[in-house]
Amino acid sequence: MTVQGYDPRTGEPVGDGVAETTAEQVESVLAGAAAAFPAFRSTPPGVRAQFLTLLADRLDAAAGELVPLAVAESGLPVPRLTGEVARTSAQLRLFAQVITEGDYLEAIIEEADPGATPPRPPLRRWLEPVGPVLVYAASNFPFAFSVLGGDTASALAAGAPVVVKAHGSHPALSAATAELAARAVADAGLPAGVFGIVFGDQQGVQALRDRRIKASGFTGSTAGGRFLFDVAAARPDPIPFFGELGSINPAVVTPAAVAARPEDLVSGFVGSFTLGTGQFCTKPGLLFLPAGHGLGPALSAAVEAAAAGPLLNARIAGQLEKGLAGLAEHPGVSETATGEQAPAQGSWASPRLFTTTTAELRADPDGLTAEHFGPAALIVEYTDPADLFAALGAVEGSLTASVQAEPGDDFPLPELLEVLGERAGRVVYNGWPTGVAVSWAMNHGGPWPSTTNSAHTSVGATAIRRWLRPVSFQSVPEELLPPALQDANPWGIPQRRP
Amino acid sequence: MTVQGYDPRTGEPVGDGVAETTAEQVESVLAGAAAAFPAFRSTPPGVRAQFLTLLADRLDAAAGELVPLAVAESGLPVPRLTGEVARTSAQLRLFAQVITEGDYLEAIIEEADPGATPPRPPLRRWLEPVGPVLVYAASNFPFAFSVLGGDTASALAAGAPVVVKAHGSHPALSAATAELAARAVADAGLPAGVFGIVFGDQQGVQALRDRRIKASGFTGSTAGGRFLFDVAAARPDPIPFFGELGSINPAVVTPAAVAARPEDLVSGFVGSFTLGTGQFCTKPGLLFLPAGHGLGPALSAAVEAAAAGPLLNARIAGQLEKGLAGLAEHPGVSETATGEQAPAQGSWASPRLFTTTTAELRADPDGLTAEHFGPAALIVEYTDPADLFAALGAVEGSLTASVQAEPGDDFPLPELLEVLGERAGRVVYNGWPTGVAVSWAMNHGGPWPSTTNSAHTSVGATAIRRWLRPVSFQSVPEELLPPALQDANPWGIPQRRP
Repeated sequence: MTVQGYDPRTGEPVGDGVAETTAEQVESVLAGAAAAFPAFRSTPPGVRAQFLTLLADRLDAAAGELVPLAVAESGLPVPRLTGEVARTSAQLRLFAQVITEGDYLEAIIEEADPGATPPRPPLRRWLEPVGPVLVYAASNFPFAFSVLGGDTASALAAGAPVVVKAHGSHPALSAATAELAARAVADAGLPAGVFGIVFGDQQGVQALRDRRIKASGFTGSTAGGRFLFDVAAARPDPIPFFGELGSINPAVVTPAAVAARPEDLVSGFVGSFTLGTGQFCTKPGLLFLPAGHGLGPALSAAVEAAAAGPLLNARIAGQLEKGLAGLAEHPGVSETATGEQAPAQGSWASPRLFTTTTAELRADPDGLTAEHFGPAALIVEYTDPADLFAALGAVEGSLTASVQAEPGDDFPLPELLEVLGERAGRVVYNGWPTGVAVSWAMNHGGPWPSTTNSAHTSVGATAIRRWLRPVSFQSVPEELLPPALQDANPWGIPQRRP
Repeated sequence: MTVQGYDPRTGEPVGDGVAETTAEQVESVLAGAAAAFPAFRSTPPGVRAQFLTLLADRLDAAAGELVPLAVAESGLPVPRLTGEVARTSAQLRLFAQVITEGDYLEAIIEEADPGATPPRPPLRRWLEPVGPVLVYAASNFPFAFSVLGGDTASALAAGAPVVVKAHGSHPALSAATAELAARAVADAGLPAGVFGIVFGDQQGVQALRDRRIKASGFTGSTAGGRFLFDVAAARPDPIPFFGELGSINPAVVTPAAVAARPEDLVSGFVGSFTLGTGQFCTKPGLLFLPAGHGLGPALSAAVEAAAAGPLLNARIAGQLEKGLAGLAEHPGVSETATGEQAPAQGSWASPRLFTTTTAELRADPDGLTAEHFGPAALIVEYTDPADLFAALGAVEGSLTASVQAEPGDDFPLPELLEVLGERAGRVVYNGWPTGVAVSWAMNHGGPWPSTTNSAHTSVGATAIRRWLRPVSFQSVPEELLPPALQDANPWGIPQRRP
């Protein structure tokens, strides 16, 4: 069996495919990860920071070789993928910074207090890596959420060996990136098991069920993520499964914003929901506009002028077609506009915009707030703030929620931001949600179904917390403490002494 | 239907029981919690700190009324329960400190960086409460892990309304404590739904399945915790279930320690495993001694002199009896000593000590490393460090792991501490694991099966993290930001600016 990539622009196979990993090879990868853990978890952060920097350098240096593979297997354009390589290497470098700075270890040092109830011995707490981590690569970011993407970078930074389950849409790129990673592991003098990869869906499930895997990260569809979440939860020893699934990403425009910036709003929204052929987890899928907004003609014109684009694979194309057929037939929904017609070959999609009302949304929230992965969005017309808030209450959790408002806006913005903050992990003001900065304060996570665990982010510095667990040391002498908890503090990390 | 408490010392019912909550009442409690959330989550930390302090004061003031109820329903002695009230009120006060200090909010403020890849808008991140939390009370701490215990205290501190599922072993105490809590909520001017309670096992499951509950905490048996974990994971919208289940808590003694402190080791170990009739989640259930340790006679004498004690309820007594019968019949295990004979009435248990070897443990880890909740422990004789490490590798995750060693010990202690730190959430040096300080650096959590999620603690300041989720605000103007993220910083909390 091989995992075969296809060019979504033509439907033609790319290369000869990559052999699925055999069950014995999966076993060997898992054994390697487990064997590498004791040594890798004990490496000083500086060693891992050098390793992450080496990975970043190698990735940048290999861009010329890897980008063409990515273009062929994803249909995404060269500038986007070149930028994505830069984003991915910057992400590796950010985690090198994070572990060098050391606050992520959450070191707390507490002296004894014999008078406390109950008496307190000397206690020192920090975070240690959980063990080998299984990373499911996503289709829509062949670099940034794939073999050396954010899950891998944050887990390696934490000191956790990584086993990647390659995405079936870009096997050749995954194999080439994995080779690069394995060479960097060897050149850094780390155990080979620090990085491994498996190809094939069943192989991913075999790894997820294995006791040596201690946590897993995933970015993909709600159906796929839910299946794997259930596998992780059903283990004799359940493990945390950090899945980023579907997200509808509501955006709200106030009447004052419509009045002040009609053209910007139309171009910004259509640009955002059609960017990358609509294949971002942060695509704004619902736009709440005040009834009588008058933007209809401009929206239609912008959508009609928008280009068709290739979807990442035939499965995504099939699901989008089915989902939008349901939306088009919905009695409470009208189709507003369609963009450039898609070519017949490959897996292309046309931009499509639909319109409904808050009353229809509240009557059928499941039908009208489901994510359609691709260049499609639904306008929802609201009458007043109370009507809007009631409708937002029927929208499930999202990665983002956006608001477009004006200075001195008479809309109840504090209440609106509270409602949005309860339903999303990132609140965007006068911006569109596509474009996710890789930084210290980013949060890319949100209530179900946007993630399986809203307590964590999969992008940004704090994503490392997913692969860590606290351990306290009670009355342990200085020379037996981990370096981070020693009074001598050889790693120079922040030690909190409350 | 009523929930009926029994005096474990006599087997006699205590009072007339407490009526099970009706399904309609459960619905009302859940609706109240959901309705209280928007107001409660917006309270400044100072308001919640005052409320927690009020709860602590009221609990202390009611000790004279509550402790006799607890004695009757748990069989635990007055001094232990009086101390437990003090521990529980101190815990409420610790969380008042935690939220006043404000580091728990993990506020990060990051300026824009248009030159980053991708460009970075201004981002501000903090943690918000997840929503209403369901707390399952435990039997073995009628105060500290019950209605106003650590899960409740940390969730209220976070700004999450709490619904308690009362433990069936102390319904009268739970009802009285809940009345106290409800009065404090009212006197603090908070919405009534901030605190609710339900009685009955099915009622607990009804609440756990309800979409308004966003997370759950549990302390209890592995079987009960696993059942509820599965319920939480099987929801259409799975929620985090933080269960503290069974723990075997291995303790290791080096040859040097045996030689230096034989009497202290014997009295310390027997005191720890029989304390509170062995009903602590941190009871040392396995003691690794070097072969030829020569402590046998002293251990036998200490166990034979140890008093029988009441178990918390008849179910625990039945499970202990069954578990120890299996251990006694195990061909690789010998019974070392039995303590005072238990009276026939009620649910009493005698201290019991067994002995086996590392070879037997490795041959049947499931049979020999299972927790027996009660005053029982198993000595495991090891030959050398390599033999010990191999045996420890067969012991499942624990809350604690302890080591007894000497200054200048020639045992490979760094390796031992690494092995123990990988398998437990707290490493205790020259101490016994019973007695859990409620403090900033405590960790009370560990790998499966000791908890369902080793990334968090259920005791100590950082237990609050379980009920929080990050939210980032992008480009949001100062006046619309949460107070904790404003430049003006009206709450005076730490704001990290990387």
